[in-house]
Amino acid sequence: MRHVVYSQPFTVGALTSLFQNTDWIRQQFRDPEGKKRLRNLFPDKNMILLFYEPSTRTRISFQMAGIHLGMSTYATENAKEFSSAIKGETIEDTMHVVCGYEPSVVVLRHYQEGAAERAAKIAEQYNVSIVNAGDGGGQHPTQALLDVYTIHTELGGVNGKIVLMGGDLKNGRTARSLAYLLSKFERVKIRFFSPPELTMKDDILEHLDEHGVDYSDSTNHRGLPDLLQEADVVYWTRFQKEREGNGADELARQFAEKYSIGREELGFMKEKSILMHPLPRVKEISPEIDEDPRSAYFRQAHYGMHVRMALLQELCKDK
Amino acid sequence: MRHVVYSQPFTVGALTSLFQNTDWIRQQFRDPEGKKRLRNLFPDKNMILLFYEPSTRTRISFQMAGIHLGMSTYATENAKEFSSAIKGETIEDTMHVVCGYEPSVVVLRHYQEGAAERAAKIAEQYNVSIVNAGDGGGQHPTQALLDVYTIHTELGGVNGKIVLMGGDLKNGRTARSLAYLLSKFERVKIRFFSPPELTMKDDILEHLDEHGVDYSDSTNHRGLPDLLQEADVVYWTRFQKEREGNGADELARQFAEKYSIGREELGFMKEKSILMHPLPRVKEISPEIDEDPRSAYFRQAHYGMHVRMALLQELCKDK
Amino acid sequence: MRHVVYSQPFTVGALTSLFQNTDWIRQQFRDPEGKKRLRNLFPDKNMILLFYEPSTRTRISFQMAGIHLGMSTYATENAKEFSSAIKGETIEDTMHVVCGYEPSVVVLRHYQEGAAERAAKIAEQYNVSIVNAGDGGGQHPTQALLDVYTIHTELGGVNGKIVLMGGDLKNGRTARSLAYLLSKFERVKIRFFSPPELTMKDDILEHLDEHGVDYSDSTNHRGLPDLLQEADVVYWTRFQKEREGNGADELARQFAEKYSIGREELGFMKEKSILMHPLPRVKEISPEIDEDPRSAYFRQAHYGMHVRMALLQELCKDK
Repeated sequence: MRHVVYSQPFTVGALTSLFQNTDWIRQQFRDPEGKKRLRNLFPDKNMILLFYEPSTRTRISFQMAGIHLGMSTYATENAKEFSSAIKGETIEDTMHVVCGYEPSVVVLRHYQEGAAERAAKIAEQYNVSIVNAGDGGGQHPTQALLDVYTIHTELGGVNGKIVLMGGDLKNGRTARSLAYLLSKFERVKIRFFSPPELTMKDDILEHLDEHGVDYSDSTNHRGLPDLLQEADVVYWTRFQKEREGNGADELARQFAEKYSIGREELGFMKEKSILMHPLPRVKEISPEIDEDPRSAYFRQAHYGMHVRMALLQELCKDK
Repeated sequence: MRHVVYSQPFTVGALTSLFQNTDWIRQQFRDPEGKKRLRNLFPDKNMILLFYEPSTRTRISFQMAGIHLGMSTYATENAKEFSSAIKGETIEDTMHVVCGYEPSVVVLRHYQEGAAERAAKIAEQYNVSIVNAGDGGGQHPTQALLDVYTIHTELGGVNGKIVLMGGDLKNGRTARSLAYLLSKFERVKIRFFSPPELTMKDDILEHLDEHGVDYSDSTNHRGLPDLLQEADVVYWTRFQKEREGNGADELARQFAEKYSIGREELGFMKEKSILMHPLPRVKEISPEIDEDPRSAYFRQAHYGMHVRMALLQELCKDK
Repeated sequence: MRHVVYSQPFTVGALTSLFQNTDWIRQQFRDPEGKKRLRNLFPDKNMILLFYEPSTRTRISFQMAGIHLGMSTYATENAKEFSSAIKGETIEDTMHVVCGYEPSVVVLRHYQEGAAERAAKIAEQYNVSIVNAGDGGGQHPTQALLDVYTIHTELGGVNGKIVLMGGDLKNGRTARSLAYLLSKFERVKIRFFSPPELTMKDDILEHLDEHGVDYSDSTNHRGLPDLLQEADVVYWTRFQKEREGNGADELARQFAEKYSIGREELGFMKEKSILMHPLPRVKEISPEIDEDPRSAYFRQAHYGMHVRMALLQELCKDK
């Protein structure tokens, strides 16, 4: 593995291997000796976080991942506003310059779809690895990987699981990516549930059709209890009001009322199931259920750092 | 000690112990061996600076404190504007996520009073320490601690000292906090001196009354020479023009003329006294007296880093 | 050497020594052992990057230079907007505070000409070194040094070289500084070529006259092929449209058409010549010639980090 630009190239075999490494990393965190072992892994490696778009959460997760592996990290948070980009520099030129500073890894967040792939092409010439931390309408592969890892580790596997995805499926990039990745596993069933205005887009549904994935798509609020009862995984998402135009306020009101998970909804869920959310949440999951063992969203965020550590380890080990 | 959220819980005993540790740290800086000793203290510890409000000075002081102790540091300066906060995330959720990244210490600067205490409640669940670096109208405890340390180290103790606080006592958080902390010591006398529009607020005066502290409150400019002559400590502050509405310009003019310390005012001060200022200063202390040994304001700023190092050492040592 | 504030004090002897150190550093990057050797040089040194003006490229170059030398680095990118500067603090006061935090080196970028020299005066009192990373209309000495180093290393020396400087010579600080430094070497010939509106300013021409440098100044587009043919170094620059008022758009159009280097222009250049550019470029050099061995602009940017490492090494070695 040289770069992490898309999540598609990860086969089930590659995912399994990545997840084993992630397990090993989590194990190291359990005692001071293990943490020290991690910190001694890459004292000579360094990572540049080049963020053309702000994303404090992703940045902090990657930077802490690097710190725990003993890497030196350098970050710039608003490369777009501040840098030579404003003078019209292409991503290719920026990469030529930055890669010459001999980083081991460049974590790139960009506002243009395809930027990470263009960056990786240049990085090839310099023995530098690119990690895509989100490129506009494009991908954010490490988010998708951590979502699958969460299911894998919390439920002991992905095959055969029933995954209910709810909330704003139209605008939520993470739900789209997860659905895509789940199609690689066997006998996974997906249940989409959203307001009629915010259903999953056709390209994903077609992809699932092509791969023979059992899925259904519901907007009927009265069916929610049954869906919750059946699910091994409930993956809930925030209404991305900022992406909707007219009528967003009214939609937000309906969303808050009918598409939220609280004590009552949790009550329908199986004992051995989990509730996930890519965070940040607003009000679509009530804090009153945070303590329930099924509420996995904070653990899910933490796994994000562990998965990123496993990826960095893979990228750095032969450098 | 698990967190530093308020300065009130520091008893005179705790302060004495903190000041001894600060002395030890300052001693280490005197030779390369000592600096190396410091840098080897916490190579496995790390610190996240989560600043929802800009404060370059506080941030740099904390981050350099961490660097000198060998800690890895990660900082984000405008968490408010950039982060998921903008999408409506609570400080509790942010702390749940961040603490799961296994930092040793989170230094928090927030715009809401009480945010640090709320953060500390979540951090409890993760073996993470919170340091309050200012929370809105609330506290900025490390500033108060460094002010008392300055008196302690420059004058060999705090008991029995006469402290003249001058300038904008209404808006200056540091003068308020210092008056509060001084009330813990014995036989301290406080003299307040300010324009009539900018006197110390009643809550602090009542607190001093309750604790039997000898204090006076003057707005009579002609009395200043006597006050300066009597004082062991002259603690001067900037007019916070940005917090006053109408009439601020005229008040600023008067302030600059009558409430400033220059060569003449310094002339009244005792030989064994010190002039302090929380900085930044504008014109209320003339640079022409910077070289005078009584001018302690830059040393005071430097002690800030040392006190913060002593606090970090205390928080990290048992982790 | 205590500070790097201006490029003028660098004699040819000092430059030669700096360039030898830079060569040594570049050599270390060729194998893992050498990189490790670099990283072990200054584990106890640290560097503060205090940027009052954004400059992602300069900042990343310096910070990576520090990281490769094993230094701890701390950076603040918008010190102007965020810091106490907004409350009216002078650069002198800021330096008094920052230097007391015991950095080894402060890299300063400021919007006021002369700020670096004022900062260095204060830093003297604290055994701290200042590196000027650009001060308003003033200097950016490390850029000038890396440009001369590029000529030195790519062509085996500077003496006797013919240097064609083209593009926007009026607004380009780097071309001005380079012309100035070149005057220190022997038998260098300089050819200026620009639109009539953007010619090199008189102060530099007078300086060259005083030092008996052979130079010419042309705005005749038809003469470009001859100039390209003769040159050992073609140093091209971007039209700084943002610094021109009315007519900038029309000028930009002409500039793009007549003052650009593409395959045709490159065809005139000697086989043993180099094409330099301070970057970022917009369209004045066509990406289609990036692969040509004469295109030295990316290497030039990389040398920037190496030269900065050599300077940091010089500043830190006796601390």
